[in-house]
Amino acid sequence: MTITGKNLIAGEWSGDASNGFSAINAIKNEAMSETFADATTQEIEHAIVRANEAFNSYQQLPAIKRAQFLRTIGEEILAIGDELISMACAETGLPEMRIQGERGRTIGQLGLFSQLLESGEYQGIFDEADADRQPLPKPDTRLGYLPLGVVGVFAASNFPLAFSTAGGDTASALAAGCPVVMKAHAAHPGTAELVARAISSAIKKCELNEGVFSLIQGKNYAISSQIVTHPLIKAVGFTGSERVGMILQKQINDRAEPIPFYGELGSVNPQFIMAGKFAEDSAGIAQALVASLMMGQGQFCTSPGVWAYIEDDNMANFERAASEAIAETKAGVMLTPAIAATYTRAVEHWQTLSGVKLLAQGQSGVEHFGRAALFATDLETFKRTPALHEEVFGSCALIVRLKNLTEMAEFIRLLKGNLTASIHATDNDINESKTIAALIAHKVGRLIYNQMPTGVEVCASMNHGGPFPASTDLRSTSVGSEAIKRFQRPICYQNMPNELLPELLKR
Amino acid sequence: MTITGKNLIAGEWSGDASNGFSAINAIKNEAMSETFADATTQEIEHAIVRANEAFNSYQQLPAIKRAQFLRTIGEEILAIGDELISMACAETGLPEMRIQGERGRTIGQLGLFSQLLESGEYQGIFDEADADRQPLPKPDTRLGYLPLGVVGVFAASNFPLAFSTAGGDTASALAAGCPVVMKAHAAHPGTAELVARAISSAIKKCELNEGVFSLIQGKNYAISSQIVTHPLIKAVGFTGSERVGMILQKQINDRAEPIPFYGELGSVNPQFIMAGKFAEDSAGIAQALVASLMMGQGQFCTSPGVWAYIEDDNMANFERAASEAIAETKAGVMLTPAIAATYTRAVEHWQTLSGVKLLAQGQSGVEHFGRAALFATDLETFKRTPALHEEVFGSCALIVRLKNLTEMAEFIRLLKGNLTASIHATDNDINESKTIAALIAHKVGRLIYNQMPTGVEVCASMNHGGPFPASTDLRSTSVGSEAIKRFQRPICYQNMPNELLPELLKR
Repeated sequence: MTITGKNLIAGEWSGDASNGFSAINAIKNEAMSETFADATTQEIEHAIVRANEAFNSYQQLPAIKRAQFLRTIGEEILAIGDELISMACAETGLPEMRIQGERGRTIGQLGLFSQLLESGEYQGIFDEADADRQPLPKPDTRLGYLPLGVVGVFAASNFPLAFSTAGGDTASALAAGCPVVMKAHAAHPGTAELVARAISSAIKKCELNEGVFSLIQGKNYAISSQIVTHPLIKAVGFTGSERVGMILQKQINDRAEPIPFYGELGSVNPQFIMAGKFAEDSAGIAQALVASLMMGQGQFCTSPGVWAYIEDDNMANFERAASEAIAETKAGVMLTPAIAATYTRAVEHWQTLSGVKLLAQGQSGVEHFGRAALFATDLETFKRTPALHEEVFGSCALIVRLKNLTEMAEFIRLLKGNLTASIHATDNDINESKTIAALIAHKVGRLIYNQMPTGVEVCASMNHGGPFPASTDLRSTSVGSEAIKRFQRPICYQNMPNELLPELLKR
Repeated sequence: MTITGKNLIAGEWSGDASNGFSAINAIKNEAMSETFADATTQEIEHAIVRANEAFNSYQQLPAIKRAQFLRTIGEEILAIGDELISMACAETGLPEMRIQGERGRTIGQLGLFSQLLESGEYQGIFDEADADRQPLPKPDTRLGYLPLGVVGVFAASNFPLAFSTAGGDTASALAAGCPVVMKAHAAHPGTAELVARAISSAIKKCELNEGVFSLIQGKNYAISSQIVTHPLIKAVGFTGSERVGMILQKQINDRAEPIPFYGELGSVNPQFIMAGKFAEDSAGIAQALVASLMMGQGQFCTSPGVWAYIEDDNMANFERAASEAIAETKAGVMLTPAIAATYTRAVEHWQTLSGVKLLAQGQSGVEHFGRAALFATDLETFKRTPALHEEVFGSCALIVRLKNLTEMAEFIRLLKGNLTASIHATDNDINESKTIAALIAHKVGRLIYNQMPTGVEVCASMNHGGPFPASTDLRSTSVGSEAIKRFQRPICYQNMPNELLPELLKR
């Protein structure tokens, strides 16, 4: 397929890409040949208005039809074939195997919501009438869920498929009955166009109103602002940096009508290695942590960025094994040259911090590649050095050596919110693990025992979110079937005849 | 009991009330003899810090112990006896029967959460491990819920018991495992002190950490600001005016860490009377609407403030009957002289609006009493007159006469969000009712058929909330057992041994 570089506005490909922006081939570090048109103010307005018009019919679509639509999107994504894989690889530098896996996950997510809709499980709560109750009769009340309206979704740089055009937020919003206005990520606009075509085909095949989905391309910040401040936008999903996320949050705060903002803004995913684990296999756990850190060149939201443990005789073995494993890692291409530059600057900055020691670095590579780094510090330094509390996006990890359990508890109190934490322990550590689990639970969305944080299971019991800045709204997940709740809200129907009740709430 | 006028700070009665503020005896319109101390900055800080310390043990309390605590609060409230009733009546002007009913509801709400906790229903979602799954093994994941932390609750002027010191937000926060810092309403501080004593007794009887509950008295705006901006406050519940609610919302928006803000800020609760209902019994429905409007002198959140219908031959009969019913109503005491003055000003302002006709007024009374009023207008006037879109808190209703179903649909589009709407109709109206129900559903939290909006059932399927300004967060209810979700958030436990899992999630 030839990339048009245009915006998909309610079924029409619109805009002139001839003087537009280009993505960068991540591996070659040079501009790609395709150019893309920044969406105009009018195009964005039209996309949102058409989405709101489509809301009327789309929300009334039987759940089973919405399920079919989601499945069809998955089929159409698969039908794009190798072009999607090669485009995503070129735009992000992620390896082919990873992108193939991510495509599978994306289609799987769509399928999970299809199953949920088909199961009819999402029906609500019923309380029957009781005409004889004293002092007043009890009415029949039924709690159901309504879709919020048009949802604005922002694609993530690091998951060009699973957290982008037809990714988790899009799938859960469409499942909930909400049209989507999608802002593509400027780092992978070609991938976005291909996936948007798949969605557009699915809309046609399922004979839906074409306003249900629009794709907005652009490198211009005013575009994002126009989307999040529009009165017809009723919720926003975003995955990206804390800096950009907080700009959007402030614009959303200034709206006349408050709306939910689901921003995933960063996480250091602390790893706690307990004494028993050290004693059992300090080299093994060191190698496993480095392997997890190196996944996607450290560019996973759940990358293990901070490792904490209490100093003991096994510590030296652990740190030696970890340093050796880091030293063996090859430099790797990062998602964009800008991300690579930011990463390199952060690692250089950490090397200047007093009380912070560089234990090991990976092999070096060309300028736009990321080179792994392992640092170590103590609680006192961690406490007084705000830079160490921030996520460094890439394959950099910080060891925090602690003196005792009291210091570990104090360290936990200093942490910001995270998506995940892991406790690596044996049965011998059970009391200490219990103490740490109770404390760290309040700083994470997912608490893991003896497994690595990278790799998120897509299922009903998953929670991908957590206290700020892991999420701007810790009450919901962006992964798994519970994510449908992001874009719905409760409504109680009282004393309603069957004819006026939604299908799932009828007697 | 002698009222001390002090603040309850983590079990200690603190402050000097001798130069403090007084509530006003609503009926007599004169200052009451009791005086109350504005809480100091130090007292508030201490209350929040002690609440956060108490969080550690309180959140780990088995659900059954929390259930017992809530029931004990109810018993202690009942044990106060007549003094509570007479104090609440004096401070609010609400009749004794109403306050007795509200006490029953308050104790019932506490009991509903006890039942929920005892039932163990709130346990979560489980996905079992599958070691053989390809390409990767599937971990065991369990979704549970964690309490958010210390909750700030603001008492409502119009429900001195059910939405105040031990009201819905307090009950659901305590049920969820969150300590509460309660800001009493300056209009009923004596009622607040009595109920706070009941909670304090229950804390002692159940041997809980006294930081679990504090009562903050005050008339000073800085107090509210200190509570909502404190880093240890993790959620806020508020019921009051849009003006004050939005001041708090802005302060909350400026926090470093975003937190949930549940503000219930106003609702006009539109009533739709369909042609068949008019034909069946236009006088009956008119009288029923006036009776609903007059409940609590129109000071219910769910008071029917706007009545809409399509003009036909029965309209004149309806309006005559409604006007007669209004004319017969007696002026009644309002919650505070300030609320009475605001109400009277709004009614006078509406009389000056072009295109708005005063159909009838109730009997007049003394200055601090509210006098019922019924106005009528058309769509064109409604459209161009923003004042008509705002809630007038009190016994004032606006009829909007519409020409046809298209105008009714347009009228719905102009409405802001509401707690409730009712459709009054017969089987003959079923098609029109269907159209209206589908449209108005998106503007309300509860949709009612052939019943009045006043009177909220406290049960699992209730939703008391809705689009802004009915609520600043339409994703949750303040009434019914689902309200526990306001103060909890999901957490996923992955591959966790039984010893580290919360009780409800163990294998």
